[in-house]
Amino acid sequence: MSLHYPSVLLENAVNEFAKLPGIGRKTALRLVLHLLRQDVSQVEGFAQALVTLKQEVKYCRSCHNISDSEICGICADRSRDASTLCVVENIREVMAIESTSQFNGLYHVLGGVISPIDGIGPSDLQISSLEERVRQGEVKEVVLALSATMEGDTTNFYIFRKLHPYNVKVSIIARGVAVGDEIEYADEITLGRSILNRTPFDESYKLK
Amino acid sequence: MSLHYPSVLLENAVNEFAKLPGIGRKTALRLVLHLLRQDVSQVEGFAQALVTLKQEVKYCRSCHNISDSEICGICADRSRDASTLCVVENIREVMAIESTSQFNGLYHVLGGVISPIDGIGPSDLQISSLEERVRQGEVKEVVLALSATMEGDTTNFYIFRKLHPYNVKVSIIARGVAVGDEIEYADEITLGRSILNRTPFDESYKLK
Ligand SMILES: [Zn+2]
Ligand SMILES: [Zn+2]
Repeated sequence: MSLHYPSVLLENAVNEFAKLPGIGRKTALRLVLHLLRQDVSQVEGFAQALVTLKQEVKYCRSCHNISDSEICGICADRSRDASTLCVVENIREVMAIESTSQFNGLYHVLGGVISPIDGIGPSDLQISSLEERVRQGEVKEVVLALSATMEGDTTNFYIFRKLHPYNVKVSIIARGVAVGDEIEYADEITLGRSILNRTPFDESYKLK
Repeated sequence: MSLHYPSVLLENAVNEFAKLPGIGRKTALRLVLHLLRQDVSQVEGFAQALVTLKQEVKYCRSCHNISDSEICGICADRSRDASTLCVVENIREVMAIESTSQFNGLYHVLGGVISPIDGIGPSDLQISSLEERVRQGEVKEVVLALSATMEGDTTNFYIFRKLHPYNVKVSIIARGVAVGDEIEYADEITLGRSILNRTPFDESYKLK
């Protein structure tokens, strides 16, 4: 159904919302009309929270996770095992794995996976800084926790070869979820179990 | 899955998004992370469009539709038939009916329907201003286009009785959609047809 807006201001706000992924025009209109029913201070609070985040967000210098400081809370936590690094795509996977309480090491956030179709190559990801962390010698194990997709697997092999020259164990989380599923949609129990059951990774590993 | 936020700024932004209807925490996180990947100017544009709308929005003095001016574009359009008023719940229904191109009269936006459960009575709606428009004598027909729900029907009867003393025809749009469905989800053709096929409304009308 095409929409005839009675107000340019309204149309502008709806257009902005409709730029967000998964938000169609009708949903955008519904959200904007909801905001219109709120107090001005609430709408300003909503807008300000987004602008402040964008302006002040930092990324941890060590693991590249989103952080309020130069070094994130996880990396700064001395009670965690700095000899084990879990390699993930994005902050969402850090949050998902943290919620399982099954991992006490540190993370390394790649920022995505290698995907030639999307024009994402190794240099677009935080892979050289992973190699650098391993090169420094404190890391004993790298746990690969990427999505069980073609792109995830391509990235697993790429990282495995990059880390091969170093004295580091490379393991991969147990695949408890169906191949093709994304990590962030796994339930806590499955995800926790697959971290506990991680297995050594080598060239013979096959995505089944 | 519970979420462990690595940043208070991030958590604040997610919390704001999650206040919106139908937006859960995981969706909110996804939207915020999408905004984080945009330029600062785009995030500011998004925020500003919402604040500007909220601060500067007007409601038409005549029909109560959202408007950029004191009198909305529809009410100001002299080519439209000011003797026919279509009574709707909200601006969404005005937009839906306009998109059918089947109605050339003016609107009256109630702001909802009578709903005792939600604490919404006649005085919370723009019913007395509807009566005032009719009392002035120019209106010959009032078309009821409220949702085919209990609340919509209660409101139909209430308005019918209020307008009874005046020399005005009260009609109701043909019910082409299933009882219980909301007007805004009807497709254009069904909605257009039900306006063309509107029937006189009286006390014997039953919600079937
Ligand atoms: Zn960190
Ligand atoms: Zn108007």
